[in-house]
Amino acid sequence: MKSKGSRFERELIAELWKNGFAAVRVAGSGVSTFPCPDIVAGNGKKFFAFEVKMRSSLPLYVSLEEIEKLRKFSEVFGAMCFVALKLPRKKWKFFAIEDLKETPKGFSIDEETYEIGKDILDLRGFVQKRL
Amino acid sequence: MKSKGSRFERELIAELWKNGFAAVRVAGSGVSTFPCPDIVAGNGKKFFAFEVKMRSSLPLYVSLEEIEKLRKFSEVFGAMCFVALKLPRKKWKFFAIEDLKETPKGFSIDEETYEIGKDILDLRGFVQKRL
Repeated sequence: MKSKGSRFERELIAELWKNGFAAVRVAGSGVSTFPCPDIVAGNGKKFFAFEVKMRSSLPLYVSLEEIEKLRKFSEVFGAMCFVALKLPRKKWKFFAIEDLKETPKGFSIDEETYEIGKDILDLRGFVQKRL
Repeated sequence: MKSKGSRFERELIAELWKNGFAAVRVAGSGVSTFPCPDIVAGNGKKFFAFEVKMRSSLPLYVSLEEIEKLRKFSEVFGAMCFVALKLPRKKWKFFAIEDLKETPKGFSIDEETYEIGKDILDLRGFVQKRL
């Protein structure tokens, strides 16, 4: 499961480079003392932090804890944060935290939410606030 | 050797957080297909990429290959890049690539170069060019 997760993360890293972003996988993102995402990327103008998920089907649930560490890291770092989701035979989709639905089981991406996911090409279009 | 390196990297990560930077260790920085540093950090205004070294004594040599991957990553990402060096019983010191001496054995930090190394507090003072 872990190596499968890493493989998908590496696939997203390659996609990001192809789209003009320098991207790295974060070591020990699940166990670090400090909040951190799975992937950090930047293109000199915009900076992104991604929590990476792959699922065979929807809905996907992301825990409040995962969302919080993604959000905290991104605030300090100065990145926009997204959940990056890979479904079988689909392109990567990107979801802002405010796009997710809060449910008793965590933040969710269901079929309806999935439709508003952004494509990798949309990432360059996001306007990043500067401190 | 690898775990010792990781320990020092984690120590630097903690120092960076203490100084207001969100910082992450990069997974597989030695083996990645794409150029990458050991640590990436940002504070919403400034972004840094570090190649991390610890040595028991000087001089330190950094290979052209390591310098190139650090530089390439930083250019695309939009980060300032430094070699971060830890000597026993000394604070972390930071060296811009142009501070290093080019020698036949690689880019070096000798006693003389060591003196011009920056402290962690100096990092906030660097002026970052925006694309």
